[in-house]
Amino acid sequence: MNVEILAVGSELLSPFFLDTNSLYLTQRLNDLGFPVSRKTVVSDARDDIRSSIQSALDRTAYLFVTGGLGPTSDDVTREGCAEALGRTLIFHREILDKIEARFKRRGRDMPPANAKQAEILEGADILSNDNGTAPGQWIPAGRTTVVLLPGPPHELKPIFEESVWPRLAAHRAGYTSRAVLKSTGLTESEVETRIAGLYPDRPDLRLTILASPGQIELHVTAFSSHEETAARAAAESLSDALLDRLGGFVFSTSGADLESVVGRLLRERHKTLATAESCTGGLLAERVTRVAGSSEYFLEGFVTYHNTAKHERLGVPPDLVQSRGAVSAEVAAAMAAGVRARARADFGLGITGIAGPTGGTVDKPVGLVYLACAYDGGVDVQKNIFLGDRQQVRFQSAQRALDMLRRNLLGVQAS
Amino acid sequence: MNVEILAVGSELLSPFFLDTNSLYLTQRLNDLGFPVSRKTVVSDARDDIRSSIQSALDRTAYLFVTGGLGPTSDDVTREGCAEALGRTLIFHREILDKIEARFKRRGRDMPPANAKQAEILEGADILSNDNGTAPGQWIPAGRTTVVLLPGPPHELKPIFEESVWPRLAAHRAGYTSRAVLKSTGLTESEVETRIAGLYPDRPDLRLTILASPGQIELHVTAFSSHEETAARAAAESLSDALLDRLGGFVFSTSGADLESVVGRLLRERHKTLATAESCTGGLLAERVTRVAGSSEYFLEGFVTYHNTAKHERLGVPPDLVQSRGAVSAEVAAAMAAGVRARARADFGLGITGIAGPTGGTVDKPVGLVYLACAYDGGVDVQKNIFLGDRQQVRFQSAQRALDMLRRNLLGVQAS
Repeated sequence: MNVEILAVGSELLSPFFLDTNSLYLTQRLNDLGFPVSRKTVVSDARDDIRSSIQSALDRTAYLFVTGGLGPTSDDVTREGCAEALGRTLIFHREILDKIEARFKRRGRDMPPANAKQAEILEGADILSNDNGTAPGQWIPAGRTTVVLLPGPPHELKPIFEESVWPRLAAHRAGYTSRAVLKSTGLTESEVETRIAGLYPDRPDLRLTILASPGQIELHVTAFSSHEETAARAAAESLSDALLDRLGGFVFSTSGADLESVVGRLLRERHKTLATAESCTGGLLAERVTRVAGSSEYFLEGFVTYHNTAKHERLGVPPDLVQSRGAVSAEVAAAMAAGVRARARADFGLGITGIAGPTGGTVDKPVGLVYLACAYDGGVDVQKNIFLGDRQQVRFQSAQRALDMLRRNLLGVQAS
Repeated sequence: MNVEILAVGSELLSPFFLDTNSLYLTQRLNDLGFPVSRKTVVSDARDDIRSSIQSALDRTAYLFVTGGLGPTSDDVTREGCAEALGRTLIFHREILDKIEARFKRRGRDMPPANAKQAEILEGADILSNDNGTAPGQWIPAGRTTVVLLPGPPHELKPIFEESVWPRLAAHRAGYTSRAVLKSTGLTESEVETRIAGLYPDRPDLRLTILASPGQIELHVTAFSSHEETAARAAAESLSDALLDRLGGFVFSTSGADLESVVGRLLRERHKTLATAESCTGGLLAERVTRVAGSSEYFLEGFVTYHNTAKHERLGVPPDLVQSRGAVSAEVAAAMAAGVRARARADFGLGITGIAGPTGGTVDKPVGLVYLACAYDGGVDVQKNIFLGDRQQVRFQSAQRALDMLRRNLLGVQAS
């Protein structure tokens, strides 16, 4: 029961755009137990559309064709598909009425070009589109069902959910269950060492690792041809085993980002936060406040880029900067304690470091970052040397600072 | 002289990964006058690889096959290609020596599995890989040349630049010249109205609009089958005409981001900047300091999320917040003037607004944002109602604030 996806659109063959609809379609098709076995992109050329559809007919149970259903002369997916299947296009008055009504509601007359969007292949079911003018089409053709969907994601997704999913679910090939663990504080190879032996070697259980500097995600996908509970049990079992190995380095099993996890912990404990940043330049505060409702626990942030600001805003003694350097454990601690006191917050986070690409020395290389977390009872300081470019050093710095706060709130030590 | 790209890899048929190599390949192929006419993704299945290569042979001058050249048993691109072309795989001692030497340099023995990476199709040229173990292969096959390249971008790109580009350039189909204009302050439909009539209707001159909330980019691509100068002239001519219509709304013709443009203007004029943010939560400071060397002109930033902080840090009078509301023109102006004075900066930028999703009222809806730019001579204030989600409102707010500063530095009025 393989499925193929054919994306139509000359812009998808330019250096500017990728067919991102296929990621959404793949996930939803996998949910029903259908693997995607091939993806193809062709231009708005009728011959290419026709030949691509024809060759897929021999191979696949379902062929999803996205794009090329618009009103312009470039949009020829309907025509190419009709040729491939040897069907005629039939004009549907009730679809035209709906398109005209859609324009009327916006106070405009329908341009004549849109009329062709009311043409449906002989033998096709109409898949109603409430967010655009072109309906989708469900076209049984021998052993293959061809499904035409409009390209704009805000039209494609609702049609899939409302009209395609129920039809496919009646013939579902199985059940898929997913789990995701997000971790920070370990490198990819450290994660792999810890989870050695847990990598599944079964077609119905897969582990995908998405690694970027500062965050390693482990995605578990379990499949059962018969039972939803079996798929869920397999996913949970592997996910639990991974969690055992990774322990406190896992900050989320719900898909939530680190700033959301920290925000939830602060809110639950009725604690407040203030931040003082140098090399991250506001990224830490920006991430904390990306979370809706963060004004409940985030009081304020300082971006003390110049040393004068570190002194005037946070009370970092100038002689400390002089003797230890602006990038030092002592200055990070003074920033965290200073912002905590001035903002009258429960927690203060401080970051000072060298994001690069210039400014590094032999003693203090690019990537050297000191992080501090001030709390009722003391200040913890961490020294890090992060690898990567300027943005990667900044992201890892903010990530590690958030993780220090998470561990403090949870009472979890690194292990 | 069409070109096709075939990406091999089961992970590219999962919900997690897209074939991003094809964007790079497409740009470089277009540079040489070769359009990409089809892109296909198949799994690591030998039959799928074989059949995809075979069917492309009838259609295309060059077929680029990426991925599946690794050492594991899943990597079968070499075998699938050999089957498709009816060739044998020939073991090359000198490639094995090079792979073994690569491991030796890292103090390790080559795992036996890597030996198969020394297998080259009969009749193929070896494309040396200095950044990995698998070489590329250049395989003339009748009217089509099949090119095998490893999937990791840091291996694929150098091989393309060093070994593929010179071979293709000898048979180049023409010359491509590009131009890009980046604008802010106009919606996509406002841009389209202004540039009406300039949309090229020629296959050798294309205009692509990339629109996101707060930024519209216009990408010009000109092609000449004979002369580089003709392509460049055509691109420049259209770019100049677009610039005439869009005027001061264009902030960059070099590809630079707005924060880099503003940074360059500040540096050139020896001016300094400080920022005071509420709803953007540090995004403005983060963008300003994303630019390497920004410490030359950026002094400090305040994220005054709570009203207490607006008063204590920036001197915003509590009765102003009381009478006008924290989200008001008066408070934005007081924030900008306050941060300029306290930081002793030439410019102060202030932002206060409602990013949503909650917190809006009938009078002050989600998306209402006041921006202020304080300078030697006064304070300019702008009221905006931005559409979009929380992140989009925040991005547009920071973007508009940077643009106010750009216009002030250049003495450009909105027009």
